[in-house]
Amino acid sequence: MAGSTFGNIFKITTWGESHGSGIGVVVDGCPAGLALKESDIQAFLYRRKPGASRFATQRKESDSAEILSGIFEGRTTGTPISLLVRNTSQRSSDYSDIASYYRPGHADYTFDQKYGFRDYRGGGRSSGRETIGRVAAGAIAAKLLAELGITVTAYTQAIGDIAIPDAECPFEMLDIEEARSNPTGMPDRETSLKAETYLQQCMENLDSAGGIVACRIANMPTGIGEPVFEKLDANLAKAIMSIGAVKAFEIGDGVKVSSANGSSNNDSFRMNGSHTVTKATNHAGGILGGISDGSEIILRAHFKPTPSIFQKQDTVNKNGENITIQIKGRHDPVIVPRAVVVVESMTAITVLDLLLQNMTSRIDRIQKFYRE
Amino acid sequence: MAGSTFGNIFKITTWGESHGSGIGVVVDGCPAGLALKESDIQAFLYRRKPGASRFATQRKESDSAEILSGIFEGRTTGTPISLLVRNTSQRSSDYSDIASYYRPGHADYTFDQKYGFRDYRGGGRSSGRETIGRVAAGAIAAKLLAELGITVTAYTQAIGDIAIPDAECPFEMLDIEEARSNPTGMPDRETSLKAETYLQQCMENLDSAGGIVACRIANMPTGIGEPVFEKLDANLAKAIMSIGAVKAFEIGDGVKVSSANGSSNNDSFRMNGSHTVTKATNHAGGILGGISDGSEIILRAHFKPTPSIFQKQDTVNKNGENITIQIKGRHDPVIVPRAVVVVESMTAITVLDLLLQNMTSRIDRIQKFYRE
Amino acid sequence: MAGSTFGNIFKITTWGESHGSGIGVVVDGCPAGLALKESDIQAFLYRRKPGASRFATQRKESDSAEILSGIFEGRTTGTPISLLVRNTSQRSSDYSDIASYYRPGHADYTFDQKYGFRDYRGGGRSSGRETIGRVAAGAIAAKLLAELGITVTAYTQAIGDIAIPDAECPFEMLDIEEARSNPTGMPDRETSLKAETYLQQCMENLDSAGGIVACRIANMPTGIGEPVFEKLDANLAKAIMSIGAVKAFEIGDGVKVSSANGSSNNDSFRMNGSHTVTKATNHAGGILGGISDGSEIILRAHFKPTPSIFQKQDTVNKNGENITIQIKGRHDPVIVPRAVVVVESMTAITVLDLLLQNMTSRIDRIQKFYRE
Amino acid sequence: MAGSTFGNIFKITTWGESHGSGIGVVVDGCPAGLALKESDIQAFLYRRKPGASRFATQRKESDSAEILSGIFEGRTTGTPISLLVRNTSQRSSDYSDIASYYRPGHADYTFDQKYGFRDYRGGGRSSGRETIGRVAAGAIAAKLLAELGITVTAYTQAIGDIAIPDAECPFEMLDIEEARSNPTGMPDRETSLKAETYLQQCMENLDSAGGIVACRIANMPTGIGEPVFEKLDANLAKAIMSIGAVKAFEIGDGVKVSSANGSSNNDSFRMNGSHTVTKATNHAGGILGGISDGSEIILRAHFKPTPSIFQKQDTVNKNGENITIQIKGRHDPVIVPRAVVVVESMTAITVLDLLLQNMTSRIDRIQKFYRE
Repeated sequence: MAGSTFGNIFKITTWGESHGSGIGVVVDGCPAGLALKESDIQAFLYRRKPGASRFATQRKESDSAEILSGIFEGRTTGTPISLLVRNTSQRSSDYSDIASYYRPGHADYTFDQKYGFRDYRGGGRSSGRETIGRVAAGAIAAKLLAELGITVTAYTQAIGDIAIPDAECPFEMLDIEEARSNPTGMPDRETSLKAETYLQQCMENLDSAGGIVACRIANMPTGIGEPVFEKLDANLAKAIMSIGAVKAFEIGDGVKVSSANGSSNNDSFRMNGSHTVTKATNHAGGILGGISDGSEIILRAHFKPTPSIFQKQDTVNKNGENITIQIKGRHDPVIVPRAVVVVESMTAITVLDLLLQNMTSRIDRIQKFYRE
Repeated sequence: MAGSTFGNIFKITTWGESHGSGIGVVVDGCPAGLALKESDIQAFLYRRKPGASRFATQRKESDSAEILSGIFEGRTTGTPISLLVRNTSQRSSDYSDIASYYRPGHADYTFDQKYGFRDYRGGGRSSGRETIGRVAAGAIAAKLLAELGITVTAYTQAIGDIAIPDAECPFEMLDIEEARSNPTGMPDRETSLKAETYLQQCMENLDSAGGIVACRIANMPTGIGEPVFEKLDANLAKAIMSIGAVKAFEIGDGVKVSSANGSSNNDSFRMNGSHTVTKATNHAGGILGGISDGSEIILRAHFKPTPSIFQKQDTVNKNGENITIQIKGRHDPVIVPRAVVVVESMTAITVLDLLLQNMTSRIDRIQKFYRE
Repeated sequence: MAGSTFGNIFKITTWGESHGSGIGVVVDGCPAGLALKESDIQAFLYRRKPGASRFATQRKESDSAEILSGIFEGRTTGTPISLLVRNTSQRSSDYSDIASYYRPGHADYTFDQKYGFRDYRGGGRSSGRETIGRVAAGAIAAKLLAELGITVTAYTQAIGDIAIPDAECPFEMLDIEEARSNPTGMPDRETSLKAETYLQQCMENLDSAGGIVACRIANMPTGIGEPVFEKLDANLAKAIMSIGAVKAFEIGDGVKVSSANGSSNNDSFRMNGSHTVTKATNHAGGILGGISDGSEIILRAHFKPTPSIFQKQDTVNKNGENITIQIKGRHDPVIVPRAVVVVESMTAITVLDLLLQNMTSRIDRIQKFYRE
Repeated sequence: MAGSTFGNIFKITTWGESHGSGIGVVVDGCPAGLALKESDIQAFLYRRKPGASRFATQRKESDSAEILSGIFEGRTTGTPISLLVRNTSQRSSDYSDIASYYRPGHADYTFDQKYGFRDYRGGGRSSGRETIGRVAAGAIAAKLLAELGITVTAYTQAIGDIAIPDAECPFEMLDIEEARSNPTGMPDRETSLKAETYLQQCMENLDSAGGIVACRIANMPTGIGEPVFEKLDANLAKAIMSIGAVKAFEIGDGVKVSSANGSSNNDSFRMNGSHTVTKATNHAGGILGGISDGSEIILRAHFKPTPSIFQKQDTVNKNGENITIQIKGRHDPVIVPRAVVVVESMTAITVLDLLLQNMTSRIDRIQKFYRE
């Protein structure tokens, strides 16, 4: 069954394999009137580009986006926006031997089981390149959210055991500019340097590392999220867990809540001055009953280590024989730094879609909308 | 926007508030020919029933399900199955004062923000009673999966810091019968007794506790899950995170993967005898690239502590004044034991839906299906 | 696959068989704040009730609706509205012999082919009683549209060859009060009397008649309908063709357009006074490019004659033998008069859903919505 | 809201404007293993190509399809198939003056009302070129249906009042080869010549003509269609009515049923030899209760005359002034011949999707599927 579409009102459909003609996305349901040009997309794509640091695969791909439809005189028209990124650095030969066996930690075996065969060049549809479509769409969603004053910011919180000092520290204490320029994506230079040392060590061991991406949403309106199955946190969980290599999702205090007590976990409501309801703390991560409460939204995604490592590994081949393999090619020792913009994109897409869904919640607002 | 429907082929739509006429679900897309009677539903509902232990609210609700449609001569007909559970133990008066203020940790404030007002009796739609519809539908999904040889089993893994010795221990070492009969839902008597002592202490402190529900799927076929947005893990994440009070979701090793290395996290493939592909380990929790790999599926949900505690708490009222409140009524000191069957139900529903979605993945199988 | 849900934002899920416990609908996504009581639903149900005239089946069913959820203090809360109508006049014995054979013009054979067996009592899910859920939901949609100033009105345009003089006559010339009180549903007394004579004749011949239901929407805003697959006319076509016994659907001039010329079929735009764009004619029926143009929406549904006739008919039984049957029981000689409110309901539901979908078409409007 | 996606299991998402970079479609959910090459797509595109006859616009567009993804070693992989057709014959200057006014019968006004502005070059998204995506996807659906032995054939039944002798004549009497080679698409040479004369006359009058496209499905399995809202006829109606310029949809006897009697309209069931259930007649057009009955499916679409005519027409401009215009450019005098393949494509897509949906209707079949 079709599985490449995400969202209801703002709906994206991605396509493409790592070594086919290209990768792309159709963004449908984007409101008309948004100023949009290719450089807006490009800025996001650049953040997931390979070859940007020594911890990223050295493939040189331009990843240049072409807008094929949906824009007229510099603005979105309300019709589908089709984006195309050609694959330009295809070295399929690197992958010729993986046709015959199943790489541990990869989707080779499961694709074969599901579809009977697979495009074995570089992981095909299960390659990390699949996320290009998500990021291109995320650039549009983020730009639209910005027009509404909402900002989505992701960054690397941990690589292996190296984590930024306090995961829930105030957003103001993070150095996002630093995160955008160093090779780890961490918003703290000192921690980033430690992580770089650790990664260097992993590479020397022919091994790879996992890590955590955090994402925060500032200036979030209240009321976003549709009970009971289309809750904001439920949709964020799906969006983030649909990214390859993510094995856990947390909102607010996340896994810590299971060992907490109600008295410490509950966030008291307080009046901010005389007019606004706020919360004294934000263990909830900005969501109550699946609906945004106006506080900062905080989520975290746990990424597994890159499965392509250069050590010898046991596996089986298509003839059903136990074999030992050694993977070749170009592979990042850690997925996380390039995944930061993917998490940010999926978060923006999800929040935007639910923000649009929320517009029909009250008859008085609908009457006002149509009366004008 | 409508948010009370879950699933594509096997689709459930739940409805109902804690203190309205009743709670229910419409299960649409259930294949024809399944033997089904009210006692099948009742067995599941009994597991989430209040009043079953001293750690569960003492409301005496019969929670008796009536099948209104979709069954003829004891079997499902392929048409929608409508299930109704009347609310019978409504003491709305307990809730009259919560109309005027916002309980910390509850959805009172966010519902008011979204809809302009709310059914304040016992949490309305955000009450735990909402899960009755999920559980009634889960009973049907589980029965159908059983016909295909697939078993879904959830249990309490932790309450506060008290956890069963080894979270990833072989399923065979768990005492599920014990879990179904003790007040904690833990599959280990000794640990359960410790947890009971801890909960007793929480109650004495007028406080509440969080916990972890684990869920395992045995005999899972390969190939289930639809890349890239309808992956098995992505859908399970949404299903589980849509349950009230869940703040984190893990698949397989979950949060541990972020500090792991590829060499230890990768699961080697091995031939089981000469015919079947298996994995030497199962860090992946049975899912690779969003598709089941034939191993046991393992997931965990982290529940926050019951927000209704009997200590004094700071909050605000609808007039925008800071106040101090003390919640009355009947509230579980921990959500987890009654949530076990909810996690099991949502897992069963999700897996069944994706199992049906998978039937169209290959043309040779479709040809065979229609040739016969 | 699940097929009992209609709509995206305003979403209805119907359930129930003619001779089961009852019939119902869950209306999800209804905006909060609409005043709604059971008598609003009842007024619509009364219009499709059997036994109201000599041309309708003489079963006496009360068809009394119970609101089970979604309403608090007389207003919709934004949560699902569950409506239940118990079946009270079940004479299943009338249907015992149809278990063994396939009635011509009915869905007996196709249900058996699809599901392996069927609930043969009175047509089960394919009975006309299935429309009760649609009508109950339609009452809510119509009330909500009325709050926005939009009126949906259906009536009988033809029974057999007896048609009201001019199908496209101005709405003002129709006598809707007459249509609501006579047994044909025709908005013209003289024509109705002719149709009654014709129906009397059909009954004497142990035969049945077909007919046309027309539906008009007044005060329709411009801009409603989502190109290219969710066009207003495409969705209306699906909504209306999903009603049992409808075999053709027309919008505006409908089938006449295929023999028309562009010069006569095009509707000129003209300024109405100095401010409003109008059309000099309305061959298009109020829709251009799948989007409402602000003119009256006009559609027509062609209903086949009631398939249950009392003449002898050839058919086959489940043993694969050719047999001759004579249907017994209580059956309307014409479907159309009771179907009027079904067409009106499906039209209202469709228009409302698309009206809500349209709210996100422009970024300036979204900004304004969230700024306030 | 997003409206460019059609289908559930076999899901297509189209994009593109007439004078942008190109037109395309993403086909998601196509089963793996189908042999597919660009020439399969091209054969369908050729049938809707402009410039093929003197009654089609003389724009010379190559309409050459590129497969961007989803195919590996000549077969579909189960992942999304992205198809791109570049626009090559863009003479936007022809359209510069239509920016300022609303063409009668076109969507200029409604797009402006909905989106605030529009891509006015050649109709933008509401251009006939939008159907390229449908036809490219239809080629895939038709090829897949052919693998299951199912054939979908559309042809022109009428242009203006010139119709092929008997609309419901046996399929064997139609000359489909003739229809594929003459300029009208009619499967009867004599009638086609009459229609050509009529069209010549229309052109001399600076006028245009409407017409009817019929479509038939041979070898249709029983059981296809999901009651009650996803009925086969309801989905076909939506699919066909979503094509620009279609104003009426008929299944089987269509509009004739409203003046028929039950005794003549009912189709008797008969045993075909001793084994198969057939119908003595096929007034129903192959569908009973929304489910295929195994007979030939017959449907008809009524197309309005091309709205772009060269006569002077009254309209208004964007300043709200009444004006008189005379349209220039290249426009077909009749839409129907090029729409034949569009109707065939949408029919194939719809039937395939419901055929896949039907695979989960019975538990015995699901058990058999997964046991093997």
